[in-house]
Amino acid sequence: MPSPTNEFDPGLHLHNDHDTASCPFCRIAAIYGPYDPADPPAADSVALNPEASAPNPATFLVLSTPLLIAFLDIMPLSTGHVLLCPREHRPKLTDVTAAESLELGSYLRVLSAAVARATGVRDWNVVQNNGAAAAQVVPHMHFHIIPRPELRDKRSERFTATMFGRGQREDLDEEEAAPLAERIREAVAELLHSEAENKPKL
Amino acid sequence: MPSPTNEFDPGLHLHNDHDTASCPFCRIAAIYGPYDPADPPAADSVALNPEASAPNPATFLVLSTPLLIAFLDIMPLSTGHVLLCPREHRPKLTDVTAAESLELGSYLRVLSAAVARATGVRDWNVVQNNGAAAAQVVPHMHFHIIPRPELRDKRSERFTATMFGRGQREDLDEEEAAPLAERIREAVAELLHSEAENKPKL
Repeated sequence: MPSPTNEFDPGLHLHNDHDTASCPFCRIAAIYGPYDPADPPAADSVALNPEASAPNPATFLVLSTPLLIAFLDIMPLSTGHVLLCPREHRPKLTDVTAAESLELGSYLRVLSAAVARATGVRDWNVVQNNGAAAAQVVPHMHFHIIPRPELRDKRSERFTATMFGRGQREDLDEEEAAPLAERIREAVAELLHSEAENKPKL
Repeated sequence: MPSPTNEFDPGLHLHNDHDTASCPFCRIAAIYGPYDPADPPAADSVALNPEASAPNPATFLVLSTPLLIAFLDIMPLSTGHVLLCPREHRPKLTDVTAAESLELGSYLRVLSAAVARATGVRDWNVVQNNGAAAAQVVPHMHFHIIPRPELRDKRSERFTATMFGRGQREDLDEEEAAPLAERIREAVAELLHSEAENKPKL
C-alpha cells in the first residue's frame, strides 16, 4: 500500500509486482482451477476439496472462472456471506482490468440470485471496500455479498457495526459450509441454464 | 415489496409493472437523456441543467448512457458520494438485465477512478443494498460510491453508523456540487480516452 505521502494516481492501472504467497486470495486462486459455472464439479471432486488450501483455512468455492473466483467468507456476517474477486492480484477496484470489471458486474447479479436461492433470504448487501480508511482488510479487491435476514433490533445493530470490520464475527461452521457452498454452485448453474434458455435465438 | 409470507422467487427476473412517477430515480432518468461519456456536454448545457428535476431536488449528473445514469447523492456521506443505477426501474440487483449488469461492472470501475481523481481521496466504499432488511431506502437498484477521507475517530464512527442509513446526513451543498460534478464528468472522459489509447490496435 502506498503511504499517504506518496504521489496518488487515481487512474485505471494494474499492480502486477506482487508476491502471491503473502495474499490469501492469490493462494486460493492458485490452488483452485477454473470450472464451467454452468456445470460445476461434484461436491466430492478433488477440484473442490476444501482442505486443499491447508494450512490456511478451508476454502468453500462457489464460483471459479478463468478471471474470477468466489468462496464463502471464513468469518461470515451471516449464513451465505460470499466473497467475489479477480484471480489476479488487484488491490482496489480501479486496478481490475476492463474485462474483469464486466465479468464482476455479471457475476455480482448471478451470485446474488444464487445466494438468495440457496439461503432463502431475500434481502442482502453488496459491499466492496477500497483502502484502509474504507475498512479494506485483505488488499486483494473483493466484493462481499451478505444476506440480511430480518434480525431483532439488538442483533441488527451488531450487524451494522460489524459490516465494516468492527465487533465480533464468528468462524465459518465447516459442517454447514460444505452443503451451503454446494447449493450456491448448483443455483449458479440453474440460473445460467434458465437464462440461456430464455435468450432469443439468433 | 412482497410481504414475507409471499412466495419468494430469487431468480433473475424483471419487474416492469411500475409507476415511474413515484420513483425519484425513474424521474431523473426520464428528464436527462443519454450523452457520450467520452465527450460530455458543457457544464452550462441545457442537457445537464440541475434544476430540470424541480420540484424534486437539483440533480448533478456525472454519467448518462442509454442503460445507466449516475449523479451526486442528495444527502452525501462525504464529498463525491455518487449513485449509479440503471435507467429502467429495477428494484434489486437481481432485477437488472444481463446487459445492464455488464455495464454496471464496467462503470463502477471507471466512476470509482473518476471520483478519486476529482476528490483526491484515495479510499472509498462501494455499497449496494437490496431490500428493507438491508437498509435499501429507494427501491430502484443503485450502487453507492462513497469516498472515505481519513477521518478523526469521532467522525469516522459517525460515518460507519450512517453508512446504512442511521444517523445524521447533511444536504448536498449545491454551490460545491456543480463544479464537483463537472470534474467527475471530465475525469470519466479522460479515463475513457486514456483507456482507448492504451488498447492494442486490432
